[in-house]
Amino acid sequence: VWVIDNQDYLGKLDGWNRSAQFADGLFETMRIHDGKILGLPQHVARLSNDLARLNIQPPAADLSDLLSSYAHTMTDMSHVADGVMKVIISRGDSERGYGYHDEIKPHITVFYNQAAQLPDSVYTKGVDVVLLQTQCAIQPQLAGIKHLNRLENVLAKKELGTQAFEGLMQNHLGFIIEGAMSNVFFEHQGQLITPELTLSGVAGVMRQHVLAFADKLGVKIEIRDISIDELAGFEHGFLSNSVMGIVPVKSLMQRDVKIGKLTMQLLKAWQSGVIYE
Amino acid sequence: VWVIDNQDYLGKLDGWNRSAQFADGLFETMRIHDGKILGLPQHVARLSNDLARLNIQPPAADLSDLLSSYAHTMTDMSHVADGVMKVIISRGDSERGYGYHDEIKPHITVFYNQAAQLPDSVYTKGVDVVLLQTQCAIQPQLAGIKHLNRLENVLAKKELGTQAFEGLMQNHLGFIIEGAMSNVFFEHQGQLITPELTLSGVAGVMRQHVLAFADKLGVKIEIRDISIDELAGFEHGFLSNSVMGIVPVKSLMQRDVKIGKLTMQLLKAWQSGVIYE
Repeated sequence: VWVIDNQDYLGKLDGWNRSAQFADGLFETMRIHDGKILGLPQHVARLSNDLARLNIQPPAADLSDLLSSYAHTMTDMSHVADGVMKVIISRGDSERGYGYHDEIKPHITVFYNQAAQLPDSVYTKGVDVVLLQTQCAIQPQLAGIKHLNRLENVLAKKELGTQAFEGLMQNHLGFIIEGAMSNVFFEHQGQLITPELTLSGVAGVMRQHVLAFADKLGVKIEIRDISIDELAGFEHGFLSNSVMGIVPVKSLMQRDVKIGKLTMQLLKAWQSGVIYE
Repeated sequence: VWVIDNQDYLGKLDGWNRSAQFADGLFETMRIHDGKILGLPQHVARLSNDLARLNIQPPAADLSDLLSSYAHTMTDMSHVADGVMKVIISRGDSERGYGYHDEIKPHITVFYNQAAQLPDSVYTKGVDVVLLQTQCAIQPQLAGIKHLNRLENVLAKKELGTQAFEGLMQNHLGFIIEGAMSNVFFEHQGQLITPELTLSGVAGVMRQHVLAFADKLGVKIEIRDISIDELAGFEHGFLSNSVMGIVPVKSLMQRDVKIGKLTMQLLKAWQSGVIYE
């Protein structure tokens, strides 16, 4: 792993950094290829939006420039062309209490790793998806934001263990929200259906790419509450996130499902890079 | 502020500490007097319980000894007799992803500050309490735990600003849960009423002291869902937390309320230290 912390290599955080104290910040995980960030405009748009929602000062006037320069530095430093870059932006350091001064300066930590190679079968045959007990919080002010309050994902991942590739989480109202590490889509009778994320969950950048690309294809899209009971009726499904792209589902709660036609189209669009255009 | 980090003075965290990455940990805030922790057994019991719920390895076989030794060291180091000690226990360091190895070692950071002196009027006249828009998450697996996912408290504190001493938060079901930095109690016709915290909120140690002491007094206690509408009907109220103890309410959502008899009894029990016995 390679780390940059506020411009310095291999930084350490002060113990009172608000990321460690209160999870007071957000993060962005990006796929890097030859020093370039895939889907950069969408990452920048999401980051700007989330910073504004949390009232965290942007760490630079031009976030696109900032992220790009990190990606170049990391690639040069590591000699790793295919990587994953994680950027944590915390509200900053403060000595005491939930409050903060308006002049507080945001703190950035950047991590870079070689991209993990998933087996080919993940994309050609699909993956198993189960339903978890661990829930997603209902918190409308934080829903959609990729903030640092990720304890429930940690618990979900632990519960998932090795029983399947991914586990779906519901919220307390009984609606399916997302996977422990991905967004989820269902393909049914040529339509695309994905959970509403206004009360719970993270609206991933790859989810936005999928929605935009499906819209271009003229596919009918439903973003809505999805109950557990409905899962038994969907013909196909896939997962999305910025690191692993589009991953078809081959079994959903122990029920075998085939890879759908639309899923294949989206998977190919991701593999060829067309989905980012 | 004085800091101990895994035994070293003025520690710095690795950027990949899981507190900073995922809020994967918990904390405990304790009042210290002459090197002694007020309500130590209750703090230890809560900490043990929360560590177990999050499947975090206890950082020592005897948490009571560990916390006491930190309190002594901090008092010696700072020459501050009346202090507040905050202990953050994270699951530890890991390089990548929500998952973790079973051998992961917990990481402790300890902060010590002089206790803030609240004006006498806070206790003799009471404080203003308003209702906030910022909600408490509904997350049964995390409810009650003093975990590091505190972004909503940060937002609540920001919303509160200087409009009142404390702001109450409700959850998405419309139930009052707690204040931005305290638990809340209502006194009505000699009874004590406080929110159920099985879906949302933090079950503070001072809340436990209050419940135990009221029980000893033979007071009827109701722990239950409390809707916003009910607030208008309660005769008296008070706030509790480990740092500021028992704080009477003098206005509740712009309605003046008198300090109740039971509230006074509990306040005196805290001031004299009897509440800890």
